[in-house]
Amino acid sequence: MASETRDLNAYAENLGRRARRAGLAMARSSGRVRTDALLAMARQIRAASADVLAANRKDLDAAQELGLTTAMIDRLRLDEGRIHKIAAAVEEVAAQTDPVGEIMAGYVRPNGLRIEKVRVPLGVVVIIYEARPNVTSDAAALCIKSGNACILRGGKESFHTNMAIGEAITAALGESGLDPDAVQIVGTTDRSLVPVLLKLNRYIDVVIPRGGESLIRAVVEASTVPVIKHYTGNCHVYVHETCDYELAERVILNAKLQRPGVCNAVETVLFDARIASDFLPRIGRRLMEAGCEIRGCEATRRYLPEAKTATEDDWYREYLDLIVAFRVVDGLEAAIDHINTYGSHHTDAILTNDLRAADTFAQAVDSSSVMINASTRFSDGGEYGLGAEIGISTDKLHARGPMGAADLTTYKYIVRGDGQIRT
Amino acid sequence: MASETRDLNAYAENLGRRARRAGLAMARSSGRVRTDALLAMARQIRAASADVLAANRKDLDAAQELGLTTAMIDRLRLDEGRIHKIAAAVEEVAAQTDPVGEIMAGYVRPNGLRIEKVRVPLGVVVIIYEARPNVTSDAAALCIKSGNACILRGGKESFHTNMAIGEAITAALGESGLDPDAVQIVGTTDRSLVPVLLKLNRYIDVVIPRGGESLIRAVVEASTVPVIKHYTGNCHVYVHETCDYELAERVILNAKLQRPGVCNAVETVLFDARIASDFLPRIGRRLMEAGCEIRGCEATRRYLPEAKTATEDDWYREYLDLIVAFRVVDGLEAAIDHINTYGSHHTDAILTNDLRAADTFAQAVDSSSVMINASTRFSDGGEYGLGAEIGISTDKLHARGPMGAADLTTYKYIVRGDGQIRT
Repeated sequence: MASETRDLNAYAENLGRRARRAGLAMARSSGRVRTDALLAMARQIRAASADVLAANRKDLDAAQELGLTTAMIDRLRLDEGRIHKIAAAVEEVAAQTDPVGEIMAGYVRPNGLRIEKVRVPLGVVVIIYEARPNVTSDAAALCIKSGNACILRGGKESFHTNMAIGEAITAALGESGLDPDAVQIVGTTDRSLVPVLLKLNRYIDVVIPRGGESLIRAVVEASTVPVIKHYTGNCHVYVHETCDYELAERVILNAKLQRPGVCNAVETVLFDARIASDFLPRIGRRLMEAGCEIRGCEATRRYLPEAKTATEDDWYREYLDLIVAFRVVDGLEAAIDHINTYGSHHTDAILTNDLRAADTFAQAVDSSSVMINASTRFSDGGEYGLGAEIGISTDKLHARGPMGAADLTTYKYIVRGDGQIRT
Repeated sequence: MASETRDLNAYAENLGRRARRAGLAMARSSGRVRTDALLAMARQIRAASADVLAANRKDLDAAQELGLTTAMIDRLRLDEGRIHKIAAAVEEVAAQTDPVGEIMAGYVRPNGLRIEKVRVPLGVVVIIYEARPNVTSDAAALCIKSGNACILRGGKESFHTNMAIGEAITAALGESGLDPDAVQIVGTTDRSLVPVLLKLNRYIDVVIPRGGESLIRAVVEASTVPVIKHYTGNCHVYVHETCDYELAERVILNAKLQRPGVCNAVETVLFDARIASDFLPRIGRRLMEAGCEIRGCEATRRYLPEAKTATEDDWYREYLDLIVAFRVVDGLEAAIDHINTYGSHHTDAILTNDLRAADTFAQAVDSSSVMINASTRFSDGGEYGLGAEIGISTDKLHARGPMGAADLTTYKYIVRGDGQIRT
């Protein structure tokens, strides 16, 4: 046991030290070389498809024993088509603008100092995720793009698949003249490695957990390294009295039904009291026809007696399911108050034709995304044009909302003078 | 004891809840009103000078008993002149550009969604600091400017002074129609309040400790709220073989001697081996004449036998004193390697006339500020033109280096559509 702990410590230390060295080298690499590495990575993944599928077969064989659900097995399973999609996603990242080196601000001070605020990589990024092999290549691609080194630790259920994808990535890095340690896949499924790794502040700059709330909480608990979190999405749609009913119907059905299990699906619909008697039963019945359970306030149940009764707890809930809460509110300010009190500051929408209401809602709702007359489902890096996303941050510090490659950077000040001294 | 704990919990909860409500209101205030509040604050502070000085007298009377050093007493002491300086600093913050509402990016997606990334306040900022009354008004001014609510907890040695300044601030907020809870001064010196406060994640968005390393470590330890840290500044100057000796002499003397006790003073000078025999003794003797102790590597002691011997530990040290380490290195890459290995990623300078060396150094040194031919002492919010600063962040996430009002903000995405749904 003592020697195993020693081995784990040494293994983590080695991962960290190599990542730090590779990160310093990545920060000096040109965007051209990093783009070439990504194109090589896509090519290597396609070329390795037989090996990757064989490794995936091993993971799938073990999946039954591990008691994985059908949904988990589906996310784990690769085929030729999925491998091509993975490679194509890497090529999309390659095609994005290079965030590194952007001059975010530049000016000359009265004493002649020329100051530039320049975008630079964070350094070393650790990503902890579940059994989704595509995250291995997505995360690696975003880190290479942004000039970072990364350490990837996926779910043990996808271990062999991840290692096979990792071999293709290592080959691509080598081929492009980049340090192969720029992407390291953790080569053990031992869970006790993670807390050791997450205390190596001298090597690691940030950790990003990708997965459910319990994974994120465990990472936050174990880590002394800063964590970028993406917790729950308790999203709202507020139907203002001036809204167009057809528009509202289309948007609410989409926000709830198109993919109920994701963080940007709507969980509570708020109805302005002035239109509730008219519109609430109409949209309520459409949702129920689609198999959706409705939990409503007292007023809701007056207009839609088929609805179940909502409790205070329902206003806080992220159902991630075919369930939606309804509440009738007394106008815009009551809607804003409900959202800021019960919401999770992720994505909230107003449906309205009133300009002042739209502006007030956009300013007063304390959420990372505010939608005006659009489905909450658009809150997504791809939909915002950021390219592939590394997650949707529910933090306010550093990055908020959908995170693309540029959110894996920081900046430095470069100050050029000709001998200035401070007096 | 149990009832005292209950009281503290209730007090902290009350502070947090009021700050959160005030923060939501501040986020909806106009820049004009916030500027007016700052001008009123400067006026109120000047008008209250007799009360503030009387309160300061109380703190000074207690200072002897508390065993404060002369330097601490000097930082605590106010007079008419200092009060006018405090008020003038608030007026300077008022004159700055309003960071809130800046459209950081804006574009239209192919589906017609209009996306804006808009700068918004963080929400609630807690600042924990030592016995420096000017921090009370500086921090309050920066938080008002950036549309945040704040809770200020200064050192107990300046308690009465802080409360008197706080009264002037409260009057100014009320006069301007802003929520007086936007700036709350903690009204107890009980140290056990702080850890309670720093666990109120549902109310507080960030905590910024301003003070020495032990204060920062204590805050990091106690807080579940994100902390923006400003740890040590182990700053370097590297003298490249092509540098102008006169320029180098001027810059090094300034970087070490102008104010040795601050984080951006130089702690280690690195000399290119090609010019060490020539330049090292010259600058070494100048520093020694000024009362500075030199701790050098073996080569240093060959060229400057009066130098003491440096140990490995010296390369890591932030002396904050009239001591400097000297090391002779074998060229640019060795200098970069030394800085990235032993430095604290704060501020590092190269003195050179070689363009490629300057560019390589700027790109490869992993520090928040890189100076080319200028004193490390310039690493400062005021010198960078950011206006008053809330600190110098040694973190890489969120804000790095000198932090102004804009660094107390985050952003939200505002997405405008006309009924778009996701397919």
